[in-house]
Amino acid sequence: MTSADLQRRDVEISEVGPRDGLQSLKTFVPTATKAAWITAEAAAGVAEIEVCSFVPASVVPQFTDAAAVVEHALSIPGLTVAALVPNLKGAQNAVAAGVHKITFTLSASRSHSLANVRRTPDDQLAEFARIVAFCRTLDPARRPFLSAGLSTVFGCVYEGAVDEGEVCRLAAALAEAGADDVSLADTTGSAHPAQVRRVVNAVRAEVGDRLTALHLHDTRGLGLANVLAGLDAGIRSFDAALGGLGGCPFAPGALGNIVTEDLVYMLEAMGLRTGVDLDRLLEARRLVEAALPGERFVGHLHRAGVPKGFRPATIPISAA
Amino acid sequence: MTSADLQRRDVEISEVGPRDGLQSLKTFVPTATKAAWITAEAAAGVAEIEVCSFVPASVVPQFTDAAAVVEHALSIPGLTVAALVPNLKGAQNAVAAGVHKITFTLSASRSHSLANVRRTPDDQLAEFARIVAFCRTLDPARRPFLSAGLSTVFGCVYEGAVDEGEVCRLAAALAEAGADDVSLADTTGSAHPAQVRRVVNAVRAEVGDRLTALHLHDTRGLGLANVLAGLDAGIRSFDAALGGLGGCPFAPGALGNIVTEDLVYMLEAMGLRTGVDLDRLLEARRLVEAALPGERFVGHLHRAGVPKGFRPATIPISAA
Repeated sequence: MTSADLQRRDVEISEVGPRDGLQSLKTFVPTATKAAWITAEAAAGVAEIEVCSFVPASVVPQFTDAAAVVEHALSIPGLTVAALVPNLKGAQNAVAAGVHKITFTLSASRSHSLANVRRTPDDQLAEFARIVAFCRTLDPARRPFLSAGLSTVFGCVYEGAVDEGEVCRLAAALAEAGADDVSLADTTGSAHPAQVRRVVNAVRAEVGDRLTALHLHDTRGLGLANVLAGLDAGIRSFDAALGGLGGCPFAPGALGNIVTEDLVYMLEAMGLRTGVDLDRLLEARRLVEAALPGERFVGHLHRAGVPKGFRPATIPISAA
Repeated sequence: MTSADLQRRDVEISEVGPRDGLQSLKTFVPTATKAAWITAEAAAGVAEIEVCSFVPASVVPQFTDAAAVVEHALSIPGLTVAALVPNLKGAQNAVAAGVHKITFTLSASRSHSLANVRRTPDDQLAEFARIVAFCRTLDPARRPFLSAGLSTVFGCVYEGAVDEGEVCRLAAALAEAGADDVSLADTTGSAHPAQVRRVVNAVRAEVGDRLTALHLHDTRGLGLANVLAGLDAGIRSFDAALGGLGGCPFAPGALGNIVTEDLVYMLEAMGLRTGVDLDRLLEARRLVEAALPGERFVGHLHRAGVPKGFRPATIPISAA
């Protein structure tokens, strides 16, 4: 980024496409493609990218090149390089690779937790405590930011409604255990705006400003309405995926993550600076779409363009 | 509708697909297809349907059967039958056909107004005054509800930004001239949530509760976020089209109206009663989609279904 203006952001965008968008793909995406994606999106001004998961290759073969992808991402000045980890082993590998940020995932639904990581939420809490202990043994200069991502917060494909008291209990336990921040994920795309406001406020009552981010899906079309609800409730950090990549395994054809370009457009239109240059972001989308010909890219902005006379809140890189 | 519960609504849905969705289709849709659509959607609990425009056949050949479509719609008990009119002649024809509600359209953008009806906004205001005068000559029992739809409120494809003072002036003039209510349309899909809240509040300061409805497009994916902004600003009536039918002539492939089924789902999830049975609405979508094989139907809910454990706010017809 060349302009100091780009450093001033009202809302943080964390691109999760290289992780959440690729994890369910059957075909291995070449490391060079992943690297080009990360480079292009960082060049558009996206300041944080979740570049991979550190999980066993037997579970998700897509991320066998995780260390190489992280190495590339670390070469991009100013980019926060994040990775998802489900357990201590993943956290150790992520630290060895040198990531800036680890997002540990814990499901608020017992059934989903057992299906996803074969542990109950409380066993997963204990695993998180082991990760915190491990991180505290590290040289502070190498210690990554430790984020706790609470998933299936707004509904579960197995259990349906998820108890909000349990969500609050787990969020508080994660903060207490040593999470640097806590985020809430609508893993199944079940959230609605009134629920987002209610749950964000309830969790904030437990963990205060440690609650920073929302990870929302657009499965039922409410993704950006839920972002608005989150903004209203004081959230200033959102995950999204370029082209909305990332499906829902339980509902073939259903849409996945909220679309980064549409999200950035909405925020910029509202006068909220994201630091992202929309033109360059759409360039990145074209690059990734061309590199993944079999995948379904969704969204609106790439087709409609910005309205006549549109002025982003962020000073575009081209004008900087 | 069989249940008294269905009569209690928190939010009104006005289906505009048979008008806004069909007006740009090259192929004439048979009257029987239009009638089947209207019947199916009314059976799902949609209480108001804009069934056609009264415009010269030379301009929009799709609506040469307008009188027959209205006649059919009037045979459905409890349904409010609405039609769009751009001028006095259209209003006279709509009254002759027996519609319950006329929506007169006036563009807040001078360039769009000239392109659309070959009149300036002020000339169109004068035309509206003639319609009011005509309606006042009618037997009160035959007098339709007279709604003034202000279009290109949030942006214009020719002019870009539209002056909010001009929007307020025109809304006040329409109310003063005798409109029973005023609605605001995002004709070009340019609106964003902060703008919706601001403009709704500004117009309400001029016309009070005469401002009732929003007509929003989903061109850039912000449709339901804009609905949420409208709800926050006190709006309780929204236009929508089944399957999001209705494109933007200026942006081929861009999406048009907000999707009725996704809108109803969001509202019902939030605990707001629409009176609409989602299962029956999705049935209506399948019927219309099968009858219009060349058209692009969009949306999310038809693919993902409702979340496990979902309970609508409206008591479903099947359970009533």
